[in-house]
Parts: sequence; C-alpha cells; structure tokens
Amino acid sequence: MSEVKTKASSAKKAAAVLNRLTTAQKNEALLLMADALIAEQDTILIANEEDLARGREQGTSSSLLDRLKLTPARLNDIAEAVRQIVELPDPVGDLLETYERPNGLFIEKRRVPLGVIGIIYEARPNVTVDAATLCLKSGNAVVLRGGSAAISSNRSIIAVLREALSRSAIPADALQLIEDSNRSSVDEMLKLNGLLDVIIPRGGASLIQNVVQNATVPVIETGAGICHTYVDESGQYAMAEAIAVNAKAQRPSVCNSMETLLVHESFARLHLNALANKFREINVELKGCGIARDIVPWINSATDENYATEYNDYILNIKVVKDLDEALEHIQKFGTRHSECIVTENEANAERFLQEVDAAAVYRNASTRFTDGFEFGFGAEIGISTQKLHARGPMGLPALTSTKYRVVGSGQIRS
Amino acid sequence: MSEVKTKASSAKKAAAVLNRLTTAQKNEALLLMADALIAEQDTILIANEEDLARGREQGTSSSLLDRLKLTPARLNDIAEAVRQIVELPDPVGDLLETYERPNGLFIEKRRVPLGVIGIIYEARPNVTVDAATLCLKSGNAVVLRGGSAAISSNRSIIAVLREALSRSAIPADALQLIEDSNRSSVDEMLKLNGLLDVIIPRGGASLIQNVVQNATVPVIETGAGICHTYVDESGQYAMAEAIAVNAKAQRPSVCNSMETLLVHESFARLHLNALANKFREINVELKGCGIARDIVPWINSATDENYATEYNDYILNIKVVKDLDEALEHIQKFGTRHSECIVTENEANAERFLQEVDAAAVYRNASTRFTDGFEFGFGAEIGISTQKLHARGPMGLPALTSTKYRVVGSGQIRS
Repeated sequence: MSEVKTKASSAKKAAAVLNRLTTAQKNEALLLMADALIAEQDTILIANEEDLARGREQGTSSSLLDRLKLTPARLNDIAEAVRQIVELPDPVGDLLETYERPNGLFIEKRRVPLGVIGIIYEARPNVTVDAATLCLKSGNAVVLRGGSAAISSNRSIIAVLREALSRSAIPADALQLIEDSNRSSVDEMLKLNGLLDVIIPRGGASLIQNVVQNATVPVIETGAGICHTYVDESGQYAMAEAIAVNAKAQRPSVCNSMETLLVHESFARLHLNALANKFREINVELKGCGIARDIVPWINSATDENYATEYNDYILNIKVVKDLDEALEHIQKFGTRHSECIVTENEANAERFLQEVDAAAVYRNASTRFTDGFEFGFGAEIGISTQKLHARGPMGLPALTSTKYRVVGSGQIRS
Repeated sequence: MSEVKTKASSAKKAAAVLNRLTTAQKNEALLLMADALIAEQDTILIANEEDLARGREQGTSSSLLDRLKLTPARLNDIAEAVRQIVELPDPVGDLLETYERPNGLFIEKRRVPLGVIGIIYEARPNVTVDAATLCLKSGNAVVLRGGSAAISSNRSIIAVLREALSRSAIPADALQLIEDSNRSSVDEMLKLNGLLDVIIPRGGASLIQNVVQNATVPVIETGAGICHTYVDESGQYAMAEAIAVNAKAQRPSVCNSMETLLVHESFARLHLNALANKFREINVELKGCGIARDIVPWINSATDENYATEYNDYILNIKVVKDLDEALEHIQKFGTRHSECIVTENEANAERFLQEVDAAAVYRNASTRFTDGFEFGFGAEIGISTQKLHARGPMGLPALTSTKYRVVGSGQIRS
C-alpha cells in the first residue's frame, strides 16, 4: 500500500477512538503537545535549519525563507496558540436541535467530528501545528501534506507531536504527515474517498485551484480575495480614507485586503485628489479608470485584467462609478465573494449593498481586514471559506464538525 | 455559447433578482405554478404520453414506465405538494448569530440562498416540479437536467411553469431545463464553476457516482443506503420483529430500507427461527452467515459481496454476531453512513451504538425507514445527504441555503 493510503487508513482507525474522547482528554493531549514543542525546540530548530540551508542553496526568495523560518520566539508563539485552542469550547456533542415527533420519536441533532481531514498547504511549519491541533481539538484525525521545502521541519515537528500524543488518550496515529514530496502524493490524497472525509487546501491560488479542480473528496475552498471598498456619495472623507488605507495597506499580502477602490463620481470630484495623494505618501501604486485619471492625471491606467488581479501588494485600482448600481455590477463581475465594503451615511444604500452583494462578509463603514476568525471572536481560524457549502467566511472549530441525528423510539415503525 | 452555459448564465442573472424577493412574492409565484400544472394538465399529459410511447417502443421496463407516467391524479398530488411548500417557513434571512465585538462592530450571520443549483436526475417528471419549487422557495435559481426518457414531459412542464413565473415576481429565467440529451451536457454542468454554486444529484448509484467523481462544482451527495438493524442480546422479540420487517419490507426500493440484519448470538439461538419464518411468510429471500445457517438450515449463504450490496429488493442478509463490538465492526466495514439501528433494552449498549456508529441517522428501537424529511418534520425533502459537509441526513429547505456575515461599523480599522 502507498504511504498516503497506509497513513490515511491508520488515521481513520484512530478517528474512531478520538470520536469517543472527552474534551478534557483532548485538551490534556494538546497541552502535552504545546509543552513538547518547547521542550524539543533544539531538535526542531536544527531540522528547520536544514530546510533553510536547502532553501538558500536553491535561491529561495527571502520572503519565502522568512515564512519557513522558526526561532525560539516563534516556537513559543506557536505553542502559545495551541494553549489558546485548549481554552476554546469543544463543539463536539453540541446539541443543535431536539424535538419529539407526534409518533413519539425523540430526535436530536448533535455536532460530531468530520472524521479524517486532509490538509494540503505550503512550506509553513506553523501551519503544521495550527492545523493539527485545530483538527484534533474538534475530534478529527488529520493527514497533513505540507510543502516539500519544509519537510525536515515538518518531520521533526510531527515526531515531537506524535511522541506527545503517545503519552495521551489521543492515538498518535490520529496525526499523520505525508513525507512523499512528489506531486503524486497530493493527487492520491485528492481521490481518497472513503478514507478522507474532507480536504482543506491552505495556500496560494494555484494550490487551491489544483485541489478544487482535481479532488473527488469533498473540499472546503479557502480562497482568493479580490476585495472592494465602495465609497458612496454620502461617505465621510476621513472615515473613507482611514478605511481605504487600512484595507489596502495594513497588510497587503493577505486575502482580505482591498484590491480595488470604487468611488462615487461626486465624492471623487471632491476628494479623489486628496485620497490619491494619501496613497502616494504610503507608497501604494495606483491604477485608475478614465475618469479617475481625468481627476488625478498622474496615476496609471487600469484594465479589466488589473480589476481581475489579486495583487497582494502595494498596488491599488481606483474606479469612479456613477452610482451604487455600477459599483454593485463591478463587484459582481470582478469580486471573488470574499469581503466587500461600502462607506456610506445613506441607510438605503447601505441596506442594498449588504443585501445584494454576494460575498462571505459584507461591511458597512469598516475595513475588510476584519474578515478573520480571531477578529470575529472565534478564537481560532482554520481558514476563510469562499465557497457557499458547509461554511462561509472565517472558519472556527465548529466548521470542522458535521452533525448526526440520534433518534430514540420505543418500537416505532413506518406505516 | 452552449445551451448549458447560456441557460446557467441566465439563471445566474435571475438569481440576483430572486435574492431580493420577499417570502410573499415567492409564495405567490409558487401558487401560480401549482395552479398552472392543473390548468395545463392536458398539454402535460399529451407530452407525457409521447415519452411513454417512446419508452414502450424501446422496451423500457414496466417499473420505469410507471415512474415516468403522469395521470390527472398524480399531477394533482404534485400540485398539492407545491402548495405544501408554500406553507413552509422561508429560511432566507434567518438570523443565526448576532453579537457585538469589543471594538463596536456589529456582526450578524444570516441565511442567504446558495445562488444557482444544478439538479441532475433520472426520468421522473415529479422530480422536475419538486426540485424546481424547493429551489425557488429557498431563493435559488435552478438548472435542471433530467433523464432523456422524460424529455417531452419535462419540456412541457417547464414551459407551463415558466409561463406561470412570467406572471410573477420571480423571473422565468430562474427556472431552466437543459434539453440536450447528450451525456456531454451533464459533463459540462459538472465543471461549471462560477455559474453553478452547487450540484445535487438525485437518482441511482451510478448517476451519483458520475457526479461525485467528475464534478468540480461543489456537490451534495445524496446517496446509497446499505442500512443495518442490530438486534442486541436484550432486544424484545416482538419489537425486533416489527422493526426488522418494517425496515426491510415496508418499501424495499428506497435508500433507508434495511439490507442486513445483525443478530446477537444469544438472541439468535432463541429467536432466529421464528424471525426467519416471518420473513419467509412475506416472501423475503434470506442469505445468512455460517451460524445463521446452523440455526436456520434452509437459508442460503451470504458472502462479503452480499453484505456490500444495496439490494433495494425483497432480499435480506442475516449475520449472527457474538457481541456489540462485532456488530459495530460490521457496520463500519459495510455501512454507507446512512441509517443504522440498534434494538436493545440495554442503556449502555444503546448509548455506545448511538455514539460510535458513524452515520447520518442512528436509531434506538425504531425503523430506519424514518430517515426522511417529512418523517423528521421538515415538511419537504430535496434528498438525503450521505456526506458530512454542509448537510447530513434528510435535507429540508435550510439545506438549500448558505450564510452571509453582515458587519456594521462606524469607521473601525484593524490595528
């Protein structure tokens, strides 16, 4: 049997045990894992140095090397994040519905673990710990397939975590790492119906698209964000500027940052020069439509291709629209259903925007950067779903569960 | 543009309109549809006769012809079912969560339509109406692709329903029928990401597997049922017999009927002869394991292949197990995670069964035949999900919705 199939089978057996554990037992295991990451940090850092050395040899960019790099401080943060997951409520067993039918059947709908979750991600060792502990806390076994550039770090981390699990009620086999760095191991995971209950991709657009296009196992798509902020005619300038600057520039590399600013023409005539100057001050490159360039002659021109690009960088498209309808149309055409914002003082326009925009999160007068499990108060985040099935928007622990109907009778039969 | 793409694009545009309608507007449209089915019954029945004539010519089996056949009485039932959907609560807009964050952001999570739903199904004209009206009531546009043997009936029904919609607030384009009977039109639907939000297959195992294996659009798998009833040592004979007979024989052709009866050895020694005789009386063919055949010599032998077969017929496997563990193992190995039952008077065994069996619905002392949207009190059913994502078990109207976060601030930015 292949590595993928062998490990997924072991995970499935372990999932049946994990399904029966109490919250206290799972939390105890998580605390052992957090402690082990600190106690064994020297081993992990040596392994991480192997990955970094190989990366430097291969000319990996400094930003990728930085994502790969572990330090005692970062390991400490990672362990601390595990301890925070311990503090979160366990969704498993939650009673969602309960009722009695006229024939006397008692029906309960309760949360249960999904079973075995496959996570496919990039060369980020912090995701290894984060994904593993979120899955285990919610009662799921997990099969991890991280980017090959982090393989030494991942092997070391998983060895440390599995050793910690071996001293706990959670079977070590509930945590599996696929070490085969060939693309074929990913392909095999994507088709592993019956052993994997769901696959969650975490990473860039091409990684996610490969999973979405080729998986037969159900997928939760965590996705790209081409997010817009629309400043309506009635928007207050100071608020609009603060929100737009925050949405674009507070952390441009993430999916909830803004890529295109839509501005009502009346607002633009009054304020676009000031706004453009503000963006120039903070080194954001601007691309604009014809009207935007009439008002602010020094900005470059924006094409449909620009509107369809997730820059994840200090670049911003500006489009002047004649009204809310044109803004809604643009978002419908170019948005990725992630996070969209209107800045307005007009109640009717706000309500139309919140109602009509098709996205995981719609905002009035607040930065799209808030689309995040921590900012939403979930205490954790396995990703941000941009699909409509199962979970939409930031996903906390409940998104890692399914449900089960428990029906108790006294001999009822159907007539 | 192909028929599929053209119609899905029209459906998507219509979905944006549908999303803004009130419950009253949707209900009014549904009532017009129900009335039109009765008013135009002659047209529909003539079209249906074309399908039946073609079917008879091609030697279609009488059971398939019966599923295809419409009569005034059946059309009346179908229209009545539409009127019942009108009476159901509209899930769209339901407030699922609401809270204020420490920074003053107000967050609401509300139900919204999925968008455009693709339904792929067999030659059953009743499903055309049922699927269409459930989707529309929950605010979704729908693209139907029914079996080609029902194409004349479907064309006629859809023309009647679209004409009714044209007199309502719902755009007629929210209801689309793919008329191309080539398999390629199904293949095209399965890959229509961006236009279809979800595909729900309704039909036999091969139809469902084709969708699950080939779709890149998210799928809700409505599935096969290899359901078990386990009679524990402490089970009462009369209750066990009633439940087993009902689960097997009340309607063997459906997915929630029983395929294998598991019997504790002590119970089997006392009662298996009586139970086997009871099944013989009602013409159920029995296949048994070695011990079952020691006790009841006249039954045939069962193989692993039998245990893995969804008969949908008057055939039953009987396996004698030495304890609950062996029953749980058998269900884990051969069950399809649909519906599983234990007949027992032992609390601890009941709790273990309900907790440990991995299935959409688990029963104590009641027939698995109750796994059904109407029996669960949902008032409707679009299918029974056997997957763990999004919806599990019988799916009513809420299963046809997604959610959206609405976030209202007063200028909040992220620091």
